[in-house]
Amino acid sequence: MQRKPWSKDEFETALRALDRRYHIHHPYHRMMANGELDPEQIRGWVANRFYYQVTIPRKDAALMANCPDPETRRLWVQRVLDHDGGAPGEGGIEAWVRLGEACGLDREELWSMRRVLPGVRFAVDAYLRFVRDAEWHEGVCSSLTELFAPRIHRQRLENWPRDYPWIDAGGLEYFRKRVTQANRDVEHGLAVTLEWFNSAEMQQRAMAIVQLKLDILWSMLDAMYMAYVLEMPPYFNEGEKA
Amino acid sequence: MQRKPWSKDEFETALRALDRRYHIHHPYHRMMANGELDPEQIRGWVANRFYYQVTIPRKDAALMANCPDPETRRLWVQRVLDHDGGAPGEGGIEAWVRLGEACGLDREELWSMRRVLPGVRFAVDAYLRFVRDAEWHEGVCSSLTELFAPRIHRQRLENWPRDYPWIDAGGLEYFRKRVTQANRDVEHGLAVTLEWFNSAEMQQRAMAIVQLKLDILWSMLDAMYMAYVLEMPPYFNEGEKA
Repeated sequence: MQRKPWSKDEFETALRALDRRYHIHHPYHRMMANGELDPEQIRGWVANRFYYQVTIPRKDAALMANCPDPETRRLWVQRVLDHDGGAPGEGGIEAWVRLGEACGLDREELWSMRRVLPGVRFAVDAYLRFVRDAEWHEGVCSSLTELFAPRIHRQRLENWPRDYPWIDAGGLEYFRKRVTQANRDVEHGLAVTLEWFNSAEMQQRAMAIVQLKLDILWSMLDAMYMAYVLEMPPYFNEGEKA
Repeated sequence: MQRKPWSKDEFETALRALDRRYHIHHPYHRMMANGELDPEQIRGWVANRFYYQVTIPRKDAALMANCPDPETRRLWVQRVLDHDGGAPGEGGIEAWVRLGEACGLDREELWSMRRVLPGVRFAVDAYLRFVRDAEWHEGVCSSLTELFAPRIHRQRLENWPRDYPWIDAGGLEYFRKRVTQANRDVEHGLAVTLEWFNSAEMQQRAMAIVQLKLDILWSMLDAMYMAYVLEMPPYFNEGEKA
């Protein structure tokens, strides 16, 4: 057990080392990066991940609702604006809808959330609830999987046009934008975390919070793996005799 | 779409027909009933399901906290007492611990929740949160998967001694008690539901609530299937090179 607090550098190194558990290593994501997903499996991912996308600005608003510091809120509101956009047709959620359209999912179907699997819903809801109930620095800390996000977006930008030529490359704008946005966001989130979690116990708490977030991302892909790779979505056998 | 309200009989028939989606049909449960699980897979199920067991009385207390009617609370508190027991060593949670011990899991390990998979945790937490946030009749409605429970307990009582002789039969007391308790509980829950949800829209809402609960139970077994049947628990590949 850790007894003395880590220096900020050591703490940052420990946080960054958690990337060994990032969902980039999940079998579903590995198949995606290897060009092994069929169109329905891509669409399943895009439609399920959409539920995460639309939840993020709610999560960020929940964090702001817990945060008494105007300066932090002024920085944090940028995340909400990034996702919601300044006008209809703008923002990250809309960019995700265009990604969906490029994959053959229409806007209405995405927004209906019809394809969202229960396991994905429970995991994403757990994220919103965690941030809503947490002290706000803990909410900030839970965003730190963004440390690992630019790599996953770059990977998609690189392999999708090659492996999934049936997807219009214009649809990949979301990934392009997030490479820069995630870099900017994470600098702030990391600075807050390294400053606030300043005892050995607090630093372990921060590690557990990032771990919870990793669990959420991994668990989402587990549900998709069951449904779209193993073809065992919920109640797949409901017609059979028991 | 349903336009006229169902009669109480029709409504009850519709609710009971949801048993086609009960987790008794999940591949993990079918393996269990066919004697196909190995000891580690049985232990995985017992340890994960323990998290559900300890959450149930909290869920029931949350329901009581939302319920202004003393008569309902007087009936409902029996559920809390059933799980927590009247004295140390009694009650359903304790009976589950003895089930765990009969399977080779010790008390401390169960209570540590070390084996609880993230997907199980998110699903169970979703149940507690639903009941905490719901109008109390909706909370009652979410308990109606108990309609299907006596069958699943009887199945276990029948096949475990035959298929899993290494488990001390004394450990199965929990299942024995729940056959009668679930029958008594569900009479009350069903009567409240049939009375309260009295328009076509309300009846559809009741169906959606039972569906949510079915999603929770199914999703728990999905996580166990990934971890213990496919042997792909979270981060199973974290040592590998990406």
